Amino acid sequence: MQTYIYPSISEWSLLFQRPIQPREDLQNTVLQIFEDLKNLQDQALFDYTEKFDGVKLSNILVSNQEKERAQQIVSEDLKQAMKLAFDNIQQFHLSQKEQKKIVETMPGVNCWRESRPIEKVGIYIPGGSAPLFSSVLMLGIPATIAGCPYISLCSPPDINGKINPAILVAAQLVGIRNIYKVGGIQAIAALTFGTPTIKAVDKILGPGNQYVTAAKQTAQSLGIAIDMPAGPSELLIIADESSNPEFVAADLLSQAEHGTDSQVILLTTSRDLLEQVLNQLSHQLSFLSRKAIASQALAHSRAIVLECLEDCIAFSNLYAPEHLILAVKNANAYVDKITAAGSVFLGNFSCESAGDYASGTNHTLPTNGYSKSYSGVSLDSFIKKISFQEITAQGLQNIGPSIEKMAEAEQLYAHKNAVSVRLKSIISNKI
Amino acid sequence: MQTYIYPSISEWSLLFQRPIQPREDLQNTVLQIFEDLKNLQDQALFDYTEKFDGVKLSNILVSNQEKERAQQIVSEDLKQAMKLAFDNIQQFHLSQKEQKKIVETMPGVNCWRESRPIEKVGIYIPGGSAPLFSSVLMLGIPATIAGCPYISLCSPPDINGKINPAILVAAQLVGIRNIYKVGGIQAIAALTFGTPTIKAVDKILGPGNQYVTAAKQTAQSLGIAIDMPAGPSELLIIADESSNPEFVAADLLSQAEHGTDSQVILLTTSRDLLEQVLNQLSHQLSFLSRKAIASQALAHSRAIVLECLEDCIAFSNLYAPEHLILAVKNANAYVDKITAAGSVFLGNFSCESAGDYASGTNHTLPTNGYSKSYSGVSLDSFIKKISFQEITAQGLQNIGPSIEKMAEAEQLYAHKNAVSVRLKSIISNKI
Repeated sequence: MQTYIYPSISEWSLLFQRPIQPREDLQNTVLQIFEDLKNLQDQALFDYTEKFDGVKLSNILVSNQEKERAQQIVSEDLKQAMKLAFDNIQQFHLSQKEQKKIVETMPGVNCWRESRPIEKVGIYIPGGSAPLFSSVLMLGIPATIAGCPYISLCSPPDINGKINPAILVAAQLVGIRNIYKVGGIQAIAALTFGTPTIKAVDKILGPGNQYVTAAKQTAQSLGIAIDMPAGPSELLIIADESSNPEFVAADLLSQAEHGTDSQVILLTTSRDLLEQVLNQLSHQLSFLSRKAIASQALAHSRAIVLECLEDCIAFSNLYAPEHLILAVKNANAYVDKITAAGSVFLGNFSCESAGDYASGTNHTLPTNGYSKSYSGVSLDSFIKKISFQEITAQGLQNIGPSIEKMAEAEQLYAHKNAVSVRLKSIISNKI
Repeated sequence: MQTYIYPSISEWSLLFQRPIQPREDLQNTVLQIFEDLKNLQDQALFDYTEKFDGVKLSNILVSNQEKERAQQIVSEDLKQAMKLAFDNIQQFHLSQKEQKKIVETMPGVNCWRESRPIEKVGIYIPGGSAPLFSSVLMLGIPATIAGCPYISLCSPPDINGKINPAILVAAQLVGIRNIYKVGGIQAIAALTFGTPTIKAVDKILGPGNQYVTAAKQTAQSLGIAIDMPAGPSELLIIADESSNPEFVAADLLSQAEHGTDSQVILLTTSRDLLEQVLNQLSHQLSFLSRKAIASQALAHSRAIVLECLEDCIAFSNLYAPEHLILAVKNANAYVDKITAAGSVFLGNFSCESAGDYASGTNHTLPTNGYSKSYSGVSLDSFIKKISFQEITAQGLQNIGPSIEKMAEAEQLYAHKNAVSVRLKSIISNKI
């Protein structure tokens, strides 16, 4: 880690910088695959799966047989762990349901909002070395709580044409029936336009590499909603002399192992702790299976000593991390001061892994500073809120004259007239 | 209006079509202006304002003198009308505040969310013939309720270098201090990158023409959040034999006068009512100041007779209108069946104008079918929700073993280790 001792505030902005992304222009690739998908439909899915995933499929839809086989392969232990996570995630996201509140803004003017599920949602789950079945829970559970009538899941097949069985088991636990063996840009294109096999959806959610991210952005420009802009995962830890350096190092590594482009930042008021964490890091790193990845991520990561915890919080708010661990004494006292972060973990026993898997909070969070303006995935991500109003004759008499004046001032006389004809009718019916 | 009597369901999809937008490619123009803004800063704002708005400004910031003068120009009547609207909009948006709910998903595992305002928001208000000061209220009020520390407003100057006084009065009513005389792509570019005069913001909200829309999309691709994709305004009315044809016609016209690209759709079960509405339309149209605009909008609008109200609701849900008026007997009985709309108006006295100005609901709504996946602007548009968790030693013992199993199955051993080191420490401290 790069170490900074008491950098001046004028130096902070350099320290907020994220690792520079290789700005490869994927736009032409995305547009080509989207075009082919529109023209060739399912055939494009077969072709690109053969090209990119190295497997020739005859069927994209995961069969019941494959689902059953996955149930046999996955251990009971893992299923039980998933079930515990499922219960906690469900409980937390159920608490996000809102009650209808009717507000009578003036006598006879009733306004309220009602939630409705987004009808068709597509969930993308990356394949590759780490089969992210936990993301199936994090996206599928709120989708089912929202009551989305149609949920589909796309994930790339491995070289044998299979989706990791843990992903299939998680999808079955959630109740997702439509699972497709297709990944990358071609999966996002299929969810955007639809094919005979894969339905077009209203919203696409889920993590992915730079190809998937670029494809989701293109889908968005075509009118499909997406969960949020994506970037490499991040963790910022604020630690003081009360922190446990072994825990802090373990947390930094748990983030660093995600990818070489992950970024971890340690802010501390204690130079002693910093030394101990750095020692722990090299010790723990030596045992890690993903040591090579974590080392590279650490190389562009930062350990910074600041004067006081208030400075650490101020730094963190300006950085706006995806994950923030407050491993300090009396962490709760700083909650109100946090103005930007995806998910915050308080105290020495609240490790990021807990939120990644099983505490109940969602792990799909805004990265790259987007927590300044975006929330993580929640029940809200799968619903829209429709406003309703019911105005009585009396209600319109209360607000009508004001509407007439404002419409007139905006030179929208037909808007005014819609009120005037009603007010006249109310008066003439009374006479 | 184009009239359709009992079209078959197979014909519906043609009737869902929105007026085709002239697909002018604005991308190069947007990129050029964004580039100039980055290089020339405020000078680019002066140059483009001279070019597009025809006025040479020496200062972009609206002065206190201009604000005071606006207060003198705007009539007390209009100010009172605005105040009534302000109170209702504030009341309704205040009701959208959420209470913090701490959920103990397992003993010792506490999870909750807290709302934080987006720190810097930019509001765009179009100029032109209709000075949309009502949008200042609709965007400014929730922004101030959210507690956004920095709110700026951009609106193009007229040929005399002034912003319409009603816009300035509305902004003062809301409490927006930073008001800039700049519009179009250059305003969005300034809000995206910042200049010495105009601060860069985290989110840009507000209506605009196709140039502003294209610029907002570009801002979004650069990481600035926006309210929602925009399209021409729409209204769908469902009417039965109990509807008042005069009211229905007035509502259709109030939408049609917005622009030549506006779309209105009338669905009814009554051929009689259809005839009466068409008669009323031509009668009322003759008195309208914006007759030319409304006539063009009506030319590509549709009046459709369907078998039953259930069919009308089904049609409307598939069309997903921005505004939906249910001018039918017992309108409330159909609320639960509505699955996609921006804002819904129930009964004969709930006209769209009420929601446009003063009932309390927001008028910034998803158009062009986006109400399938987007909500209108609300308090939510100005906040983000941060998740928090506080896990005790006991809590980690409850969920830790499941996290270890899941992390292992995802081959993320550092994630597992972050739990393992803590569980070991808990046990060794107990011994």
